[in-house]
Amino acid sequence: MNLAEKLISSHLVSGEMRPGGEIGLRVDQALIQDATGTMVMLELEALGLDRVRTEVAAQYVDHNLLQSDERNMADHLFLRSACRRFGIWYSPPGNGVSHPTHMQQFGVPGKTLAGADSHTCAAGSLGMLAIGVGGLEVAMAMAGQPLYVTMPRIWGVRLSGAFPAWVSAKDVILELLRRHGVSGGVHKIVEYHGPALETLSAMDRHVIANMGAELGATTSVFPSDGQVRAFLDAHGRADDHVELAADPDAGYDLRDEIDLSALEPLIARPGSPGHVVPVREVAGEPVHQVVVGSSANPGLRDFAVVAEMLRGRQVHPQVSMDVNPTSRQILADLTTSGAVTALVEAGARIHQTGCLGCIGMGQAPAVGTNSLRTFPRNFPGRSGTHDDSVWLCSPETAAAAALTGVITDPRELGLDSPEVRLPRASAPITGPFQRPLPAEEARAVELVKADSIGALPELDPLPDSLVLPVVLKVGDDVSTDEIMPAGARALPYRSNIAALADFAFGQIDETYPERARAAGAHAIVGGRNYGQGSSREHAAIVPRHLGLRVVIAKSFARIHWQNLANFGILALEFADEAGYDRLGQGDELRLDGLRAAVETGSEIDAGGLLLRHRLSPRQRAMVLAGGWIPQVSRPGP
Amino acid sequence: MNLAEKLISSHLVSGEMRPGGEIGLRVDQALIQDATGTMVMLELEALGLDRVRTEVAAQYVDHNLLQSDERNMADHLFLRSACRRFGIWYSPPGNGVSHPTHMQQFGVPGKTLAGADSHTCAAGSLGMLAIGVGGLEVAMAMAGQPLYVTMPRIWGVRLSGAFPAWVSAKDVILELLRRHGVSGGVHKIVEYHGPALETLSAMDRHVIANMGAELGATTSVFPSDGQVRAFLDAHGRADDHVELAADPDAGYDLRDEIDLSALEPLIARPGSPGHVVPVREVAGEPVHQVVVGSSANPGLRDFAVVAEMLRGRQVHPQVSMDVNPTSRQILADLTTSGAVTALVEAGARIHQTGCLGCIGMGQAPAVGTNSLRTFPRNFPGRSGTHDDSVWLCSPETAAAAALTGVITDPRELGLDSPEVRLPRASAPITGPFQRPLPAEEARAVELVKADSIGALPELDPLPDSLVLPVVLKVGDDVSTDEIMPAGARALPYRSNIAALADFAFGQIDETYPERARAAGAHAIVGGRNYGQGSSREHAAIVPRHLGLRVVIAKSFARIHWQNLANFGILALEFADEAGYDRLGQGDELRLDGLRAAVETGSEIDAGGLLLRHRLSPRQRAMVLAGGWIPQVSRPGP
Repeated sequence: MNLAEKLISSHLVSGEMRPGGEIGLRVDQALIQDATGTMVMLELEALGLDRVRTEVAAQYVDHNLLQSDERNMADHLFLRSACRRFGIWYSPPGNGVSHPTHMQQFGVPGKTLAGADSHTCAAGSLGMLAIGVGGLEVAMAMAGQPLYVTMPRIWGVRLSGAFPAWVSAKDVILELLRRHGVSGGVHKIVEYHGPALETLSAMDRHVIANMGAELGATTSVFPSDGQVRAFLDAHGRADDHVELAADPDAGYDLRDEIDLSALEPLIARPGSPGHVVPVREVAGEPVHQVVVGSSANPGLRDFAVVAEMLRGRQVHPQVSMDVNPTSRQILADLTTSGAVTALVEAGARIHQTGCLGCIGMGQAPAVGTNSLRTFPRNFPGRSGTHDDSVWLCSPETAAAAALTGVITDPRELGLDSPEVRLPRASAPITGPFQRPLPAEEARAVELVKADSIGALPELDPLPDSLVLPVVLKVGDDVSTDEIMPAGARALPYRSNIAALADFAFGQIDETYPERARAAGAHAIVGGRNYGQGSSREHAAIVPRHLGLRVVIAKSFARIHWQNLANFGILALEFADEAGYDRLGQGDELRLDGLRAAVETGSEIDAGGLLLRHRLSPRQRAMVLAGGWIPQVSRPGP
Repeated sequence: MNLAEKLISSHLVSGEMRPGGEIGLRVDQALIQDATGTMVMLELEALGLDRVRTEVAAQYVDHNLLQSDERNMADHLFLRSACRRFGIWYSPPGNGVSHPTHMQQFGVPGKTLAGADSHTCAAGSLGMLAIGVGGLEVAMAMAGQPLYVTMPRIWGVRLSGAFPAWVSAKDVILELLRRHGVSGGVHKIVEYHGPALETLSAMDRHVIANMGAELGATTSVFPSDGQVRAFLDAHGRADDHVELAADPDAGYDLRDEIDLSALEPLIARPGSPGHVVPVREVAGEPVHQVVVGSSANPGLRDFAVVAEMLRGRQVHPQVSMDVNPTSRQILADLTTSGAVTALVEAGARIHQTGCLGCIGMGQAPAVGTNSLRTFPRNFPGRSGTHDDSVWLCSPETAAAAALTGVITDPRELGLDSPEVRLPRASAPITGPFQRPLPAEEARAVELVKADSIGALPELDPLPDSLVLPVVLKVGDDVSTDEIMPAGARALPYRSNIAALADFAFGQIDETYPERARAAGAHAIVGGRNYGQGSSREHAAIVPRHLGLRVVIAKSFARIHWQNLANFGILALEFADEAGYDRLGQGDELRLDGLRAAVETGSEIDAGGLLLRHRLSPRQRAMVLAGGWIPQVSRPGP
């Protein structure tokens, strides 16, 4: 077996390991962050959970950190109270971005991790099977339920060679995105193997595994080897190490190979992580902002390289150089190693630890200016600026632009390649992590809900007949950032569906909320890979709250497809993709015999337009019930 | 002569040093920050300035740092271009809060400083005569014009004794506020003298001088002595030192004395910096947030004390402990000294350098939770939270609450008083300060104005007759934070008067903008000390844009009173304060023969209600012209 199969088979509780079928996996660990966590806590409350059942469940506060008004801190107090109530670790603001922080504090090779964040897959760097899903699935996993996913194909990517100067892990995943695009990994697990792994640290692997989300992959996995042991050792957790690897004769459903020594610095042009070109092809473009940090380049090394490149030099006066430390430990290590001092003296801005600009919480660039970021995503508007120009690149390429004020291939700087010496042991910081209360004490805790915290919407069962206006028609690759924008304006409302509704589809069509409210029950038409990107279930809950009952698309991104089912929205595909052109915004769809069609999986004839679904029996039941929560809390007839 | 008189007389260009009369002062240095600076730059453009004439003019970007959308960075680019055009130092985001940063980089004993920020007075710590005024006055000063102020009375405050353990500079100014309230310093310069000065570092003096603004004082001054020499020496500027002190036999118009050894830890209750009580009287109140930083406690020592108190301990799990470094140098010094590591390990959040929560740019507390801050102000809503509970205290008192989760007299902690050793020399960071361009090069620079940057409103002359509805009536001590709120929602619009108008008086009456627009020309009635607090001229420009022509109050705060004149709003006082009760919101005022009354200073009879003004001939001319800019750019008949 390859490693992915080993991880799956050791956690398989239902289904068969046959690509395309639904499998259920036992969940060892659960991760939530604050932008998705408030809904998860409301869901745990609705499910009547007494105490989480996973080995580890951790709540990180890393998104809503700006606190522009009282809402953010009200969310933090709510989340802390819910952690105390349900037996969940609470990682307060300042501890860091969930993915690297979880890896440092809790990651254990061989374990499964369900996370309410699409970049949960980053933990594949430690030999974990880590899958980003909607919040409700994490809530169910916390309640002891299996995690259900479509059994993916296993894509073996062999890494050989060694990095040339100025090339690093980010360029590996950018190369995969260059080759395969943002849906190249859909229904696949990317399994990395090969001789080059010896040279890739656990945090380098995090960089690569993290942005597997941008390929649309179910997850990515790396073996657990000496590099993983060294990482755990540096964090005082050598005992957690387990050796894990594919069998020597393991096969893969698909194969690819990257010779690291043939790579060059790469960059994704604005608009999509899939728009990858060599840096040299776009060199000379003026740059006004450079941001380093995020779960896509979270490691001590990623900041230390930048600090070495800037040491004794000055950031170009046109550039705002923003540094977002990713975890408390990393900030401590950067401080004691002198990297912070080098950055401060060079003119960088050192921000609090957290996601920040990566999720559009601040750091928005001016219109008409290029921003180079070591982030994973650059979907339009995600930066907080409507007409933004955000590029994605490695720390080396980012620092080069910070020095020159233009996009610069770092090989052309005329500098020696930076040598970075990392400490053998990381700062042993555990105090600011608040551990679960004992069960007795937890039972007495009351949830702290400010007025700004809303309730879950009531969800009625799927009617048998629907007449639905198509309130919105969109194109290919629409991301959940476009369906339910993040950013500093909208994010503070993540704990309040009714208030958040005003922002739905704001990036595409600001009139949608008003028109949806007027229409009531309605449909949306999408192209290929509908709902790519972030795992936020708000992209399903909010449109459902506004009356969405059916989405018809050419194809769906994995997480959003499940989120739609979780909240009772019927995801239909065109039997023939040409059907997309026959359906316009404003058209009216008549759907009869819906319940039987969903139940049996038969095609639906909507006035000559043939539609079908790929729902598993489990998903069919929740869609018929109006959603997963009503399904479990309102037993059927 | 006392020191204040020496500083005034050495810069006097018009008027006499007789309290109550208008004097003109030569301005050596000018300071602006980004929330006021965008208007200043538009004003310099309107005045047709080629190049600033002060010895030093510096633009700091310290307020609008969150960048929730494209506006903040658009402002930064505009300000940078204007600095390059007009010959102004540009201190970009990340360099720090204007007051401590200016003190470190540019402060020179004996110089005058005009600053478009009410806390400009902090530079009195170096023996400067530093006065916070409206932006237009700073623009005029930059253009070579004198700064006009009402000659204040000189208030000698003798400091004797030495601090007991756990008491520090903040408690001195809180004691003055306890004794004299928020208008106790109006039309006064507070001059500190006495034997205790030997023990007060320049940064300790900054703490005291800064919050002279909260007393309503024109400014505060300290002698320039060995402590000032040590400060300048630590910043590599020993050559800038000049010894300055009052003559041994100097007299004062008023006198007070504080025995430092008799002080105890003090705290201002929510709502006003004047609500000061001993910490022990409010001990035990639960605390959810502690924030250290701001121009009121900016020094290395203020952070180092907190770091020593937290070293090896943990922040209480209920508390968000926020640390806002105040300047790039201080962050560098805190980093190399190990203070940052101690804070990070204890669970603090280290934010970017800047004003941040002090101006309501983030860090807003949850409703119903107490926030303890080392800040200068706690006017209602200034934190960004409508029903906030913000307390003001020393770093020692703040850190005590961070450890216990309740308001705690630090003497009761049972700890040894922290010993702080400061480096003899501060980090020599000058690279990130962008110096003025040579004049030739500057002339070729074009201003970079994004669409979000507005224009100055057109201002018409004062009519001779006005019929004005009283659109708003407010009480005593209304601050400019209530007239023109800061905070994360409104601040990004500071460069756009028309857009900012929607926020006017939002804290008091959200219907004002709409009612004002409907009314057109209108009046506002206020109580005592109308317009206290921040120097923001937006509190005059925006209501004027909405039709405000006359404010009638019992008395006015100094800066706002001048800002009203600068923008052609007539500030009238009740001849008899009882008149306040005779005028209600919704009443209509008929004012005839206004121009003659303004010109001659005669009383105005508004249907039996007698009103008068205290305008100088210079101010009368600008009010008649509709404002200072029309006065100078539209020569009268």
